[in-house]
Amino acid sequence: MVFFISDQTGVTAETLGHSLLTQFNGQDFRQVTLPFIDTEDKAREAVARINQSAIDHTLRPIVFSTLVHVELRQIISQADGLHLDPFDAFLAELGQELGAEPTHEPGRAHGMRDIDAYMKRIEATNFALANDDGGVSRNYAVADVILVGVSRSGKTPTCLYLAMQYGVYAANYPLTDEEFETGKLPAILLDHKKKLFGLTIQPERLKHIRRERRSMGRYSSAQQVRFELREAEKLFKRHGIPYVDTTEFSIEEIASRILDSTGVERRVRP
Amino acid sequence: MVFFISDQTGVTAETLGHSLLTQFNGQDFRQVTLPFIDTEDKAREAVARINQSAIDHTLRPIVFSTLVHVELRQIISQADGLHLDPFDAFLAELGQELGAEPTHEPGRAHGMRDIDAYMKRIEATNFALANDDGGVSRNYAVADVILVGVSRSGKTPTCLYLAMQYGVYAANYPLTDEEFETGKLPAILLDHKKKLFGLTIQPERLKHIRRERRSMGRYSSAQQVRFELREAEKLFKRHGIPYVDTTEFSIEEIASRILDSTGVERRVRP
Repeated sequence: MVFFISDQTGVTAETLGHSLLTQFNGQDFRQVTLPFIDTEDKAREAVARINQSAIDHTLRPIVFSTLVHVELRQIISQADGLHLDPFDAFLAELGQELGAEPTHEPGRAHGMRDIDAYMKRIEATNFALANDDGGVSRNYAVADVILVGVSRSGKTPTCLYLAMQYGVYAANYPLTDEEFETGKLPAILLDHKKKLFGLTIQPERLKHIRRERRSMGRYSSAQQVRFELREAEKLFKRHGIPYVDTTEFSIEEIASRILDSTGVERRVRP
Repeated sequence: MVFFISDQTGVTAETLGHSLLTQFNGQDFRQVTLPFIDTEDKAREAVARINQSAIDHTLRPIVFSTLVHVELRQIISQADGLHLDPFDAFLAELGQELGAEPTHEPGRAHGMRDIDAYMKRIEATNFALANDDGGVSRNYAVADVILVGVSRSGKTPTCLYLAMQYGVYAANYPLTDEEFETGKLPAILLDHKKKLFGLTIQPERLKHIRRERRSMGRYSSAQQVRFELREAEKLFKRHGIPYVDTTEFSIEEIASRILDSTGVERRVRP
């Protein structure tokens, strides 16, 4: 079993642990997150759970922890298992480089450290929701980026992720028969052409995604899906819009590629 | 300057780096993410940027990297700076424990490793959008959790985060004058009482958030805000609904606390 232990949310321990575990394909681990371990009692409870797992399973527990309080770290380190803690590994070295002592207070990397950053993420999320799917706002003047693509090519989740993770203002506009028949982009998009970024996807995958939505008509037919994607790509090329094929990419990867390709600056950082 | 270098999205390097840097308060670092460093040419370009920063600034560059290819790691390690790489630090030890060799292929911890996980996150996001703000779907039978609270208490971003990060199906329902005047919850909520989780917030903060939305009327008046929050808390207590004060918490912290308190299982992991 794998434990993620933190005096805060556990997001850092989870993210780090996952990156490392994906290097060992095919092994399937039961995973438990124990967040907000911020008292000695809670730390001792966590130790009991880890030790029970050590008894119940042949593989020793693997413990990813991000604990800043030295006392809590000492308690957890007594649990039976392999302990990997980036604070243990890196904090002293980083402090030496910076010529500063770590605060040893729960760092709240994912906390309300900064109300301004919180508000930026919330406002960006509201912006994404209001400007979703060519929605009512069309407040493209303040958008950092406007994603264009056919229905179900990944625009909405990518915009939400850009907003929540990075505070980036991302709108999206769906390409439909209107654009395909005229071969033109609407004036409202052409006014912000430099902000446009296209998403495309392989036809088979799009068909599958559309069918998941229990849509069995023309919308998810092989012919329609191929037609839309071909026409969308023509529009991207005609207008010199950069685009990415999302078929093989997760939301995080699409978002990273957009930021990398457009040079849009993150307004906040995770 | 701080660099986050990755052969993939850079999310792990950013998350880890942030956790560590928050231990050194008050230092403000310029931060640059260089994702998709997956060729020797790109690695050499990254080295040039880091070295330029070493010339331009008195503080040595700090480089958080998550590179799995040994060749690329060697190139980056030649850059002038403090290098902190969790793959370097932990991978060998973890492999020994698991009795397995790491693949040394870009792990794509945030990649399309698992189409099933991707679809779960997308479907959960669609669920959150359709069931936002007491919205049209009200498909509460399949919800994992239903957040209740007054307008702008943090329900929508929390639901979206739970969906995108963990694939959790989170609906939300806004408490309004109707509930406050009758002192009752609607039948549709009472049918799923065990799934309800309340959000509250300090009046001053809520007033501030509502005013940010350029709403200067009754909606953001001190009196109205205090009234709504008092009545919402009464409802939570009367119905035994667990709740959390979000004033001091980030979206990640609210989400972690909800999962921790309700025992709702993550359907996917970041």
